[in-house]
Amino acid sequence: MSSGTGNPMASTMQPHQLAIADIFRHGKRVHAGSEVATFEGESTRRATFAEVGERVERLAGALSGLGIRPGDRVGTFSWNTQEHLEVYMAVPCMGAVLHTLNIRLFPEQLAYVVNHAADRVVIVDDSLVPLLARAKEELTTVEHFVVVGEGDASGLGDVLRYEGLLAGAEASPEWPSLDEAAAAAMCYTSGTTGHPKGVVYSHRSTYLHSLAACAASSIGLLETDRVLPVVPMFHAMAWGLPYAAWMTGCDFVMPGRFLQAEPLARLIADERPTIAGAVPTIWNDLLHHAEDHEVDLSSFRLVVCGGSAVPRSLMEAFEERHGVEIVQAWGMTETSPLGAIARPPKGVAPEEEMDWRARTGRVVAGVALRIVDDGGSELPWDGEAVGEIEVRGPWITGSYYGDDDSEKFHDGWLRTGDVGTVEPNGFVQITDRAKDVIKSGGEWISSVELENEIMAHDSVLEAAVIGAEDEKWGERPLACVVAKPGVEISAAQLRDHLDGRVAKWWIPERWAFVDQVPRTSVGKFDKKVLRARHEDGDLEIVVES
Amino acid sequence: MSSGTGNPMASTMQPHQLAIADIFRHGKRVHAGSEVATFEGESTRRATFAEVGERVERLAGALSGLGIRPGDRVGTFSWNTQEHLEVYMAVPCMGAVLHTLNIRLFPEQLAYVVNHAADRVVIVDDSLVPLLARAKEELTTVEHFVVVGEGDASGLGDVLRYEGLLAGAEASPEWPSLDEAAAAAMCYTSGTTGHPKGVVYSHRSTYLHSLAACAASSIGLLETDRVLPVVPMFHAMAWGLPYAAWMTGCDFVMPGRFLQAEPLARLIADERPTIAGAVPTIWNDLLHHAEDHEVDLSSFRLVVCGGSAVPRSLMEAFEERHGVEIVQAWGMTETSPLGAIARPPKGVAPEEEMDWRARTGRVVAGVALRIVDDGGSELPWDGEAVGEIEVRGPWITGSYYGDDDSEKFHDGWLRTGDVGTVEPNGFVQITDRAKDVIKSGGEWISSVELENEIMAHDSVLEAAVIGAEDEKWGERPLACVVAKPGVEISAAQLRDHLDGRVAKWWIPERWAFVDQVPRTSVGKFDKKVLRARHEDGDLEIVVES
Repeated sequence: MSSGTGNPMASTMQPHQLAIADIFRHGKRVHAGSEVATFEGESTRRATFAEVGERVERLAGALSGLGIRPGDRVGTFSWNTQEHLEVYMAVPCMGAVLHTLNIRLFPEQLAYVVNHAADRVVIVDDSLVPLLARAKEELTTVEHFVVVGEGDASGLGDVLRYEGLLAGAEASPEWPSLDEAAAAAMCYTSGTTGHPKGVVYSHRSTYLHSLAACAASSIGLLETDRVLPVVPMFHAMAWGLPYAAWMTGCDFVMPGRFLQAEPLARLIADERPTIAGAVPTIWNDLLHHAEDHEVDLSSFRLVVCGGSAVPRSLMEAFEERHGVEIVQAWGMTETSPLGAIARPPKGVAPEEEMDWRARTGRVVAGVALRIVDDGGSELPWDGEAVGEIEVRGPWITGSYYGDDDSEKFHDGWLRTGDVGTVEPNGFVQITDRAKDVIKSGGEWISSVELENEIMAHDSVLEAAVIGAEDEKWGERPLACVVAKPGVEISAAQLRDHLDGRVAKWWIPERWAFVDQVPRTSVGKFDKKVLRARHEDGDLEIVVES
Repeated sequence: MSSGTGNPMASTMQPHQLAIADIFRHGKRVHAGSEVATFEGESTRRATFAEVGERVERLAGALSGLGIRPGDRVGTFSWNTQEHLEVYMAVPCMGAVLHTLNIRLFPEQLAYVVNHAADRVVIVDDSLVPLLARAKEELTTVEHFVVVGEGDASGLGDVLRYEGLLAGAEASPEWPSLDEAAAAAMCYTSGTTGHPKGVVYSHRSTYLHSLAACAASSIGLLETDRVLPVVPMFHAMAWGLPYAAWMTGCDFVMPGRFLQAEPLARLIADERPTIAGAVPTIWNDLLHHAEDHEVDLSSFRLVVCGGSAVPRSLMEAFEERHGVEIVQAWGMTETSPLGAIARPPKGVAPEEEMDWRARTGRVVAGVALRIVDDGGSELPWDGEAVGEIEVRGPWITGSYYGDDDSEKFHDGWLRTGDVGTVEPNGFVQITDRAKDVIKSGGEWISSVELENEIMAHDSVLEAAVIGAEDEKWGERPLACVVAKPGVEISAAQLRDHLDGRVAKWWIPERWAFVDQVPRTSVGKFDKKVLRARHEDGDLEIVVES
């Protein structure tokens, strides 16, 4: 704090720097008995916060012994486990920088981000060694690989073992005093075009984001909660759940590498988590699994869903069949990520709550949000004006690491690349990614809304809508549909289904029935790939009008 | 933020300064329809956040017109009303400093704090004009009195009227950019010895405190809440409720000057608040009022009680008779004030919850707390070691305004003057104020615990225990007891009552039956006055052993 500088009058408050070490110490001491349960497929490992905390201190000592100093980057290439949580705590507390690596990146992208961040150590799960090994030859800065687990790691050459390191380590003494603006963690965006871009979180932004996530009106974690982060810890910091839940003393239910519907359902039944976070595809898989398996989801009091638009039909099915309330949330790597959460506003009748929960989310306190037109002028919050969403605030990025892409910023606001409307009460509805927008006859068609309505059909598993060139209208929607296994569905049937659900002129003439929708490394629909396939003539198009 | 300075690696986060203006804008826009209801005894005035917000902007314009500039102090001498909330918002947002004046100070103390803070404007409720007028001649810095209401204000000479000022004012344009370390508000402690001391909150500390108060595991405000701050807005910022509730979009139920049990009960029945904050005496009065009046408290989901120790018998009576859950909280002007809140820890059986709620509180995330012995060495959290409580954190004061009382600080920690124990899970139990400690035969007797046990007797309205000199033991407890109206109670009966409830050697031999326990300006037992009366021989002592 530059207390005094330029202040007309200074406060008497302590010049305390916000630090992840404060979060760590609070959880370790006040919630010493809370537990971290890590699923291993057949059995579950358990450790208390006191035990995890003691290991965190030894891990910091071990990393220090490997030469890691404040500011140095330590990568993780890991599932959601107790050890990953230990690294989440130890690395920022010692003043180094946690760099979560997306295990789904292509080898060349992976090598790019490791080299760009200059990771000196990478901590890797033994089950993921083969994936990391594919990039190994290209890594120019990594001095040590530290392998979690005892599995074969020969693909990485000489490695250190995590448990061995800890066994030989002394607990780190007092954590260093850090400027709260110092880097604590970094995460690269999936990079739809060009290289991935790095976002660097500070101790301050992480601390503020954790407090905001704990607010009763946002995620509202309680000590009695058992939190299941299905959203990977390499994806937008698992939405901030690791720090927020540790601060609150929630139990953790870590799914490890068991993210398929069958083991996940088993884990949920056994460990009875109360809160979970995951992208829609995970819940969609679980829902379909539950159609012909016994699934007990009764432990949930709140399921947070985000990362891409959540189909209303999915939310309704969860509520009707399983009594589980899904709440949509919105954010991105650049926003730490909490930006909006779709808690129904007050004064809404119970039967209308779904209308609000199915929206993208209501802007959270701490984030300023606006929509702007193509010329950069602010548009009203009237639920009708459509513009690009821009955000500002203490946990929003203002640049990318080692990159001067000023295109993404506008007068100090982050341009999110999401396009949508805002209701007068701050509820955002994203209608498209700016790059996915379909403009037909000069008017916008929302691909997100079309997809939702198509996916509301019983025979449809997934649908992604892209723009297709059209001589008359400029662009028309092309719907790429995945039918449920063993089900036949025609373009004519789907057009009938859409009739009355969306404006007539939105209904696509062009349909492609595909085996699956391509996904990005973080599991979102990859429309770039779909568009490329379409341009290459690789999609078989049915035209119906 | 001094981003970059001394950072081994800087983050990419926006250099956003935390500001009360962000809280204000968020509430005004996102929660435009939430309401502020102000009780006027017979009727209730209402305004939406949109309306209040618009008035806030005009109030800032008006104050600016009076020459108020960033850093200037604006005093309030007011009950809890819509207008007081407007001043809470306008003054910090324009960069000036809100100074809440305690209406219960003696005239000379009041003059001292106004002059010491150099308030340029004082905004005063018409009903309080006579109280303020008693200090008027001594005020050396006040240029304008602004009177809320149309009542007689002749005692203050020439005054401005609040509504007149607003009617003639233009809304302030954009709020200024402020350093988050800048002063936002100040409050003087009641000052048990010597002059009152000023604590100056920053925009940063207020913002952080608001987020912390919103955490589900602390007060956990929701948009659907209707918040009744009975705790005065001139007392430790009404525990931060004004900013936290505005940020969350809660409705406000403002009691104005109607704090007596009868009108308060009427207000609660009519306005159905869900959350309230008040000192124990208010709830005690309400409880006794309810013994022979119909009282409907069914709207409450949480009642926060603090400011002094909450007798367990009071909490039990509220729960048994009215189904209302009281949760004890702890803090002080110096701590913004939230330091601890007694939410029962997880894993506790329902019948044991009261054992935890009746404690002082569990330290909240964001506040570091320790107990130290007379030599300043840290003591263990074992529920047994007794020491002075010290706290540290971003919303804890590190000094007093214009005062170098270093006695109150210890290696960067605030010495709270409270003495107590800490359980391994962070639950604090305050046993005494350091200055009220009773040391008998070298061992500590907790006056707080003795008072609680005496007040658990059906015939006792209030009890305060002080130390009395004793030739043999050094000090022995002297219990000053107020019997319920029309009830007779003897020292022998009370000694029998204590038998088995406290250690035998704690049971007082000295008893004084008094008409009332003297109170400080913020409604706490004033033991300094009791001790003085005892020294002057003004208490009639019964000795029973």
